[in-house]
Amino acid sequence: MKTSDDLNKTLYKLKLTSKGQATRNRIVEAAADLMSERGIGRTSVEDVQRLAKVSASQLYHYFSDKKELVRAVIAHQTEAVLDAQQPYLSKLDSFEALQSWRDLIIEIQTQRQCKTGCPIGSLVGEISETEEEARSELVSCFAQWEAEISRGLHEMYNRGELRSESNPASLALALLTALQGGLLLSQVRREVAPLAAGLDAVLDHIRSFAT
Amino acid sequence: MKTSDDLNKTLYKLKLTSKGQATRNRIVEAAADLMSERGIGRTSVEDVQRLAKVSASQLYHYFSDKKELVRAVIAHQTEAVLDAQQPYLSKLDSFEALQSWRDLIIEIQTQRQCKTGCPIGSLVGEISETEEEARSELVSCFAQWEAEISRGLHEMYNRGELRSESNPASLALALLTALQGGLLLSQVRREVAPLAAGLDAVLDHIRSFAT
Repeated sequence: MKTSDDLNKTLYKLKLTSKGQATRNRIVEAAADLMSERGIGRTSVEDVQRLAKVSASQLYHYFSDKKELVRAVIAHQTEAVLDAQQPYLSKLDSFEALQSWRDLIIEIQTQRQCKTGCPIGSLVGEISETEEEARSELVSCFAQWEAEISRGLHEMYNRGELRSESNPASLALALLTALQGGLLLSQVRREVAPLAAGLDAVLDHIRSFAT
Repeated sequence: MKTSDDLNKTLYKLKLTSKGQATRNRIVEAAADLMSERGIGRTSVEDVQRLAKVSASQLYHYFSDKKELVRAVIAHQTEAVLDAQQPYLSKLDSFEALQSWRDLIIEIQTQRQCKTGCPIGSLVGEISETEEEARSELVSCFAQWEAEISRGLHEMYNRGELRSESNPASLALALLTALQGGLLLSQVRREVAPLAAGLDAVLDHIRSFAT
């Protein structure tokens, strides 16, 4: 449920001029880049100001503190991550679409030389035990991602393309899990092998339920 | 290859008195606890001193800087993580052993209410892009873990319990990937469902190669 605070923030955002919106975006993008590279703890508000080329008063005009900035970064990264997986992610309702989505993810990581990992997943370690609000936003982000995967698998199930003993919800969660673990291990190892091994094992498992 | 610097450090460590070793351990454990909870960036050397109840000069007697302390934390956490999975991890050479290992991991996370995630995996995001030496130590840690899983699967393969078209090395990597992704998603969601879904999907996939 939206609190009146949330509502006020939303109204405020709607009223931002396009110039104001551009400044806000520049701040969020700078914060996202820095946090993705070196973590939240080693990114100071001053670092963000410098990279975004804004003054302290400009930054604090949009964000009351670093925690609020972190939450904006989470929302921004979620949008970017889900967008990057289109058009496949929103229509993962065939074995071909699942394979194309897998290929796209591998291609993105290959191009990036596996650097920076998952922009959302890499925030989990620093946030989960210390920032309850940010943790619960991360939960929502992953839930959105999972729902996209799950919807396609449920459609396949409902069309009878997955056997009745399969559990589309659990398969979707397993796929997101393999993806997260794969991005993490590929980031640290700087090679796509873990990501490919994880996704391929779960995709093969899903294919084993084909009718 | 060991450098003479490494060798000197090893010799130095061997010469530590048991009291010195206890102090060093106390520092590493304190650092590990803090970094696991709030991340590396938000753990200062002063925080570690306070928790370990040592002076700055005591801490700097054992560790020349925070980076060296981080590397000691990685080694310490790796040992702890691998130890916690015994006796199963070192003998994952049957479907029963794989299942018992899976049950143990789920049990550990359930007891912990999924807090703190993987003590090694949760360091990946903060380290990979900024600390090359620590990143390469993390690679070694995961390689040790993967080797333990891989050895068991290779034994099953060599005894003809896994079909010849299976790839034990790739299955081992997929299992570690599901484990890492599962620990990450379970940490953020505070429930074991993602970990169970990921591990069970890959274990079912491995079972599909049973002869």
